[in-house]
Amino acid sequence: MIVKNNNLQEVLNRLKGIYEKQMPFNRLLDICIDSMTPTDIKVRIDMREELIGNFVRQILHGGVISSVLDLTGGLIATVELLKQLENIRFDEIEKRLARIGTIDLRVDYLRAGKGDFFTASGSVLRKGNKVAVIRTELCNHRNLLIAAGTGTYLVG
Amino acid sequence: MIVKNNNLQEVLNRLKGIYEKQMPFNRLLDICIDSMTPTDIKVRIDMREELIGNFVRQILHGGVISSVLDLTGGLIATVELLKQLENIRFDEIEKRLARIGTIDLRVDYLRAGKGDFFTASGSVLRKGNKVAVIRTELCNHRNLLIAAGTGTYLVG
Amino acid sequence: MIVKNNNLQEVLNRLKGIYEKQMPFNRLLDICIDSMTPTDIKVRIDMREELIGNFVRQILHGGVISSVLDLTGGLIATVELLKQLENIRFDEIEKRLARIGTIDLRVDYLRAGKGDFFTASGSVLRKGNKVAVIRTELCNHRNLLIAAGTGTYLVG
Amino acid sequence: MIVKNNNLQEVLNRLKGIYEKQMPFNRLLDICIDSMTPTDIKVRIDMREELIGNFVRQILHGGVISSVLDLTGGLIATVELLKQLENIRFDEIEKRLARIGTIDLRVDYLRAGKGDFFTASGSVLRKGNKVAVIRTELCNHRNLLIAAGTGTYLVG
Repeated sequence: MIVKNNNLQEVLNRLKGIYEKQMPFNRLLDICIDSMTPTDIKVRIDMREELIGNFVRQILHGGVISSVLDLTGGLIATVELLKQLENIRFDEIEKRLARIGTIDLRVDYLRAGKGDFFTASGSVLRKGNKVAVIRTELCNHRNLLIAAGTGTYLVG
Repeated sequence: MIVKNNNLQEVLNRLKGIYEKQMPFNRLLDICIDSMTPTDIKVRIDMREELIGNFVRQILHGGVISSVLDLTGGLIATVELLKQLENIRFDEIEKRLARIGTIDLRVDYLRAGKGDFFTASGSVLRKGNKVAVIRTELCNHRNLLIAAGTGTYLVG
Repeated sequence: MIVKNNNLQEVLNRLKGIYEKQMPFNRLLDICIDSMTPTDIKVRIDMREELIGNFVRQILHGGVISSVLDLTGGLIATVELLKQLENIRFDEIEKRLARIGTIDLRVDYLRAGKGDFFTASGSVLRKGNKVAVIRTELCNHRNLLIAAGTGTYLVG
Repeated sequence: MIVKNNNLQEVLNRLKGIYEKQMPFNRLLDICIDSMTPTDIKVRIDMREELIGNFVRQILHGGVISSVLDLTGGLIATVELLKQLENIRFDEIEKRLARIGTIDLRVDYLRAGKGDFFTASGSVLRKGNKVAVIRTELCNHRNLLIAAGTGTYLVG
């Protein structure tokens, strides 16, 4: 399979499956990629008892928030990279994607993580052939901002 | 129960139990507090399949690393706070501790998270009556530095 | 002088003078507060030879960028605090403001700092009675994003 | 000139001169590189009126602290890179060094910047052929820790 403009979406669909089904920790958290298109990435996690970090306040653990924001930023960096790669076979892409990694991530925990479900999205601050910087945000089901992230990703 | 120098360790033992057994997400990850004394905090997590973040490279998910460093920094901030609180009843302490929270956390992912188990420790950069800043590190079973964190915690 | 809704702007005008004229380092850099109203903060710095950090590439020094973003975030945190303080005398405000300080600041250097002048603005991520978190951005004269910041400020 | 083990120090001496004398902003701040050897980097700045950021408290401006830590981290990343480059001509090195840049920097402001002079040093967290991560610290003349930094630098 070769990535062209007309089948970038096909590659993204395959990646969505890989990230949701073949990454054991994403499966443990039951993270869901609600949208994965060249222009829109949305990641979602439903509240459940195992994800609570503070038994007194019944709120999402900071590590869950960080996991979701890290994945969201990584997906956005990946999509940016794929947009730059054309006519490349899927096995080549897989090799390239395996090299993508988070260099550093700052998370600001802004409000207690109360909610029925949470969705994360983000935007590109820097796109380069070596390093990408992505800003992300996590909101609860009432669209209240719970946390914000800034991550630097190795892409080259 | 009142916290005094001679029973601070007793309070720490109770907190260790709470953080390991009553925090659902810590239980899900099976995080273990190996040492919790006024001068030494060590948190440990054993590698297992569910914690893998990259199916190609078989390495720890960044979200697991972040969860462990966040907890480690929070425990160190908590112990620093407890050292300052004397002659305080345990129910008062619980109220105070429930207010402790991570304001922000930066994690630097330095090496691929390969290992049989991982241990985290840290040191105090700033101790105040409102805000504490803690530096943390995660090493694998061969004592190779995998990740480093800097977290700001609300303590007052 | 007492801060009321109708004279908040007057207080901001005084603060603008203090930050521009009485802070020696802001004067050394020749930082200018272009706008200081309850809803709009803009900080500006003009390029000149002394501010260059890389003699080969003739670009703004990272420390200049960081200084401007730190000031911008601090001003935004200050204005948020002032909005919450009513019927307070200016000498009380000065005491309160003297306690405001940057706890931590992350700056992402996104593009080489080339430009005739640079303007910084920002938005509030978290407003509390103890801690505020502010996101900031620095653009050049062609509105190209040069750097982004996230800062945590002690306000209480 | 070719870098070999026996003349790495010579290259470092030349770089010291460039960073102190040919970087206009470092000259404006009057930053001094006290030590620049393969194993020890120390940067120093003397307190003076122009560097004050808070006229009430007479303390160093956060932007000065950030500038010094950024330079310190950059020098440490540079020395690490030079250790890996052997038999390379100085004009090649200059080209390579011109590409070194700060990707992101977190600074924690731990104590009010009071002191007669301040010295910064640091250590390598990650050394790679693309990206280096450096931790830095700034102490005052009584060796009190004033600020800590973590910076990610592009080196390849």
